[in-house]
Amino acid sequence: MLETLKEEVYEANMQLPKLDLVTFTWGNVSGIDRDKGLFVIKPSGVPYDKLKPSDMVVVNLDGKVVEGDFNPSSDTPTHTYLYNHFKNIGGITHTHSPWGVAFAAAKMDIPAVSTTHADTFFGDIPCAPALSEEQIKEAYELNTGKVIVDEFENRGIDPDAVPAVLVSQHGPFTWGENPDKSVYNAKVLEVSAEISYHALQLTRDNIGVPQYLLDKHYYRKHGKNAYYGQSNAKSKDHMNEL
Amino acid sequence: MLETLKEEVYEANMQLPKLDLVTFTWGNVSGIDRDKGLFVIKPSGVPYDKLKPSDMVVVNLDGKVVEGDFNPSSDTPTHTYLYNHFKNIGGITHTHSPWGVAFAAAKMDIPAVSTTHADTFFGDIPCAPALSEEQIKEAYELNTGKVIVDEFENRGIDPDAVPAVLVSQHGPFTWGENPDKSVYNAKVLEVSAEISYHALQLTRDNIGVPQYLLDKHYYRKHGKNAYYGQSNAKSKDHMNEL
Amino acid sequence: MLETLKEEVYEANMQLPKLDLVTFTWGNVSGIDRDKGLFVIKPSGVPYDKLKPSDMVVVNLDGKVVEGDFNPSSDTPTHTYLYNHFKNIGGITHTHSPWGVAFAAAKMDIPAVSTTHADTFFGDIPCAPALSEEQIKEAYELNTGKVIVDEFENRGIDPDAVPAVLVSQHGPFTWGENPDKSVYNAKVLEVSAEISYHALQLTRDNIGVPQYLLDKHYYRKHGKNAYYGQSNAKSKDHMNEL
Amino acid sequence: MLETLKEEVYEANMQLPKLDLVTFTWGNVSGIDRDKGLFVIKPSGVPYDKLKPSDMVVVNLDGKVVEGDFNPSSDTPTHTYLYNHFKNIGGITHTHSPWGVAFAAAKMDIPAVSTTHADTFFGDIPCAPALSEEQIKEAYELNTGKVIVDEFENRGIDPDAVPAVLVSQHGPFTWGENPDKSVYNAKVLEVSAEISYHALQLTRDNIGVPQYLLDKHYYRKHGKNAYYGQSNAKSKDHMNEL
Repeated sequence: MLETLKEEVYEANMQLPKLDLVTFTWGNVSGIDRDKGLFVIKPSGVPYDKLKPSDMVVVNLDGKVVEGDFNPSSDTPTHTYLYNHFKNIGGITHTHSPWGVAFAAAKMDIPAVSTTHADTFFGDIPCAPALSEEQIKEAYELNTGKVIVDEFENRGIDPDAVPAVLVSQHGPFTWGENPDKSVYNAKVLEVSAEISYHALQLTRDNIGVPQYLLDKHYYRKHGKNAYYGQSNAKSKDHMNEL
Repeated sequence: MLETLKEEVYEANMQLPKLDLVTFTWGNVSGIDRDKGLFVIKPSGVPYDKLKPSDMVVVNLDGKVVEGDFNPSSDTPTHTYLYNHFKNIGGITHTHSPWGVAFAAAKMDIPAVSTTHADTFFGDIPCAPALSEEQIKEAYELNTGKVIVDEFENRGIDPDAVPAVLVSQHGPFTWGENPDKSVYNAKVLEVSAEISYHALQLTRDNIGVPQYLLDKHYYRKHGKNAYYGQSNAKSKDHMNEL
Repeated sequence: MLETLKEEVYEANMQLPKLDLVTFTWGNVSGIDRDKGLFVIKPSGVPYDKLKPSDMVVVNLDGKVVEGDFNPSSDTPTHTYLYNHFKNIGGITHTHSPWGVAFAAAKMDIPAVSTTHADTFFGDIPCAPALSEEQIKEAYELNTGKVIVDEFENRGIDPDAVPAVLVSQHGPFTWGENPDKSVYNAKVLEVSAEISYHALQLTRDNIGVPQYLLDKHYYRKHGKNAYYGQSNAKSKDHMNEL
Repeated sequence: MLETLKEEVYEANMQLPKLDLVTFTWGNVSGIDRDKGLFVIKPSGVPYDKLKPSDMVVVNLDGKVVEGDFNPSSDTPTHTYLYNHFKNIGGITHTHSPWGVAFAAAKMDIPAVSTTHADTFFGDIPCAPALSEEQIKEAYELNTGKVIVDEFENRGIDPDAVPAVLVSQHGPFTWGENPDKSVYNAKVLEVSAEISYHALQLTRDNIGVPQYLLDKHYYRKHGKNAYYGQSNAKSKDHMNEL
């Protein structure tokens, strides 16, 4: 069942330790088959060096396990909620990467201070509020998804243009068109947080890029006028070899 | 004598360099056989790349060497004192990991600012006071154990719920149900200290997680209602393969 | 066409990940053949582990591609402008190395605070101003070259003596007599930025080296009285073996 | 000539990149044969991956090259001056390790804030003043040695008890009974600087260990009552195997 997607989700999970985004088992990646309405996610608490593609767990959009011998990630209800509300996304990554968590602990957005951030995120990465005692007791992981979606709605942020969030006192969630892209975004979030932290320690005056720089860098890489990379190269065959 | 425990303590010690927790020989792990009242500890000052399971030293709960050609770790009296007073613990780790030592040098608790910390430690990691001149001259390493145990008693902290401490101007000690778990806790302490440091530089206002978040994260992973990981998975056989 | 230069530029690009100067594909190196008036540059967005010498793109000093199936780096107009205005340089490197970007985000020069900096850069590394909305919309990458050259002219800095710049809100560009030397300078910039950041956090009083120390260290390694290294060694044959 | 010492100095130099203490060629180690009054030092500017034991240069205590085809390190006059004035030392290491250089750039001592520092250095690591314009022009590297020795004399610090110094705006020099020990001290300086930096950012109140803690930790490892390590172990044969 969904063998190709399991392989893809497995490979995306294995990128997390390679990109220095996880300690021990503190991270998970999922990917969705929108046609079937099913997603595949890492099992809970399994070490990366023991993980196999066949260990991945299949879950439906009600959050029920459809296939798999393992428990799915304990964050599965968060993934479910995000897939139900962010209709274009194909993959989700959650990590406890330390620069991202530092901003989450300080309950601060990661400000867009440079093109490194703006190439991927079309504005500041929002920090969603901490869950209330009631939200935690009622349904912690599902309500984690809810505070994320509410924050994007309240601030009028497009989750396809800013594919990342911090949850206060917890850490980052990122997403993308597929599992691999959500991992890429998790790494860009971490590097951007590191840069923003140091810039904020150097000065808190006049920090943050203007809208026209955000526009330029975002549309250099996204949309029909993008010109970064090789999608419009003379020889697309070369790209297929890559 | 205690060959299995020696192997286990040896393996736990070898995790310290792999997890980037030690420079040179600045760390040690021990493990106890409660039935026999004997513990096994790394020899003093032996480089990790020369260490063998048979080099481990066996010590009794009076702190006397029972077997072994090497001197035990110079911190052995601290381990002895902790085993005698924290009755549930099965392993102890001491390191000079730099983020932990920075908080110890500043004589500050490592505040619980995120779920990364709260998943393992049920509250702030206390920083025990520096030893007095008298305590140092009388019995330095034994009194290091004493200030730790006194700090937990004075503050009413349960050492099984917060299995870690800093000693002012010195560094971290962690413990757990076995040697391996004490090393795991040493790594979580280091990552938590790194995150807390950066969060405190971003803001010193309103930092620290509320009790209900501590409750949620701690009991997600500990106790009879824990649901993180695979201990209640459909197929426990899979976990045995891990 | 220019096979030797392609090989040289390829090797210089491959140094970027080895020296921890790039994440993903965020960097590029070029090198010029001044006699032919052509330069060779990394293709845009191609991962380093897929890159081959034959993938390099040949560009003329009007910024037109002369040979190559791939799109050249999107920063090609910046390289073109720099080659046209800095007449002595033979290679250019652009990275998003995080310490350099932090200073660029804070719109601060990297101050020369130690001999580590002064051995390579004969003064502070200037931070050129952010591009205006008009400059960005008109010709972003070309105007990036223009703000760099204007900054050196306005401040009266010799680009051969300070072979590095930050562009505000963006990041570092470095250059040198050949591609390899421009990469070397990119690494020295990153290390110097790291050191300057920490020094500035320790104190902002009386920081920065005096002119006579800049003179001493720069001329120890550069010019006819240089005495660092082996260029005047008894046995030059030994250096050829290196 | 001095083949064993050359091998020893070569091995000590090769430890610098392994211990993450150098970028490119920015470091050097020497070792002395006190009976012959000759020391052996790394050649100037030779990359570590090309270095061979036979490349080492032999220098006498007037600073003249006695054997070797390469130029010796440009810091040779500093080494010469130190060997002439610190009579007990057998090896010297100079690096540009970034935490040490940050304190040197800020012209600050590295304060002894924890036992990690106190185990090796019996007090703060002094930061010698920057050289004057006259001192630089007259004899830069020799006067670097002079400001170091003067600083120890002026402050009444014993160079055998605090085997390390920073030179303002430059960086660390360390020494020891042999070349290997001087490299060990260079690593402890770097780790201690990192810890002290972070502790100072957490608090500048009441930082620094008391004299009685310095006494305890220093004499645990040094002198006739030392009890760290295996020098007084039952089986010294085991230590010989290490």
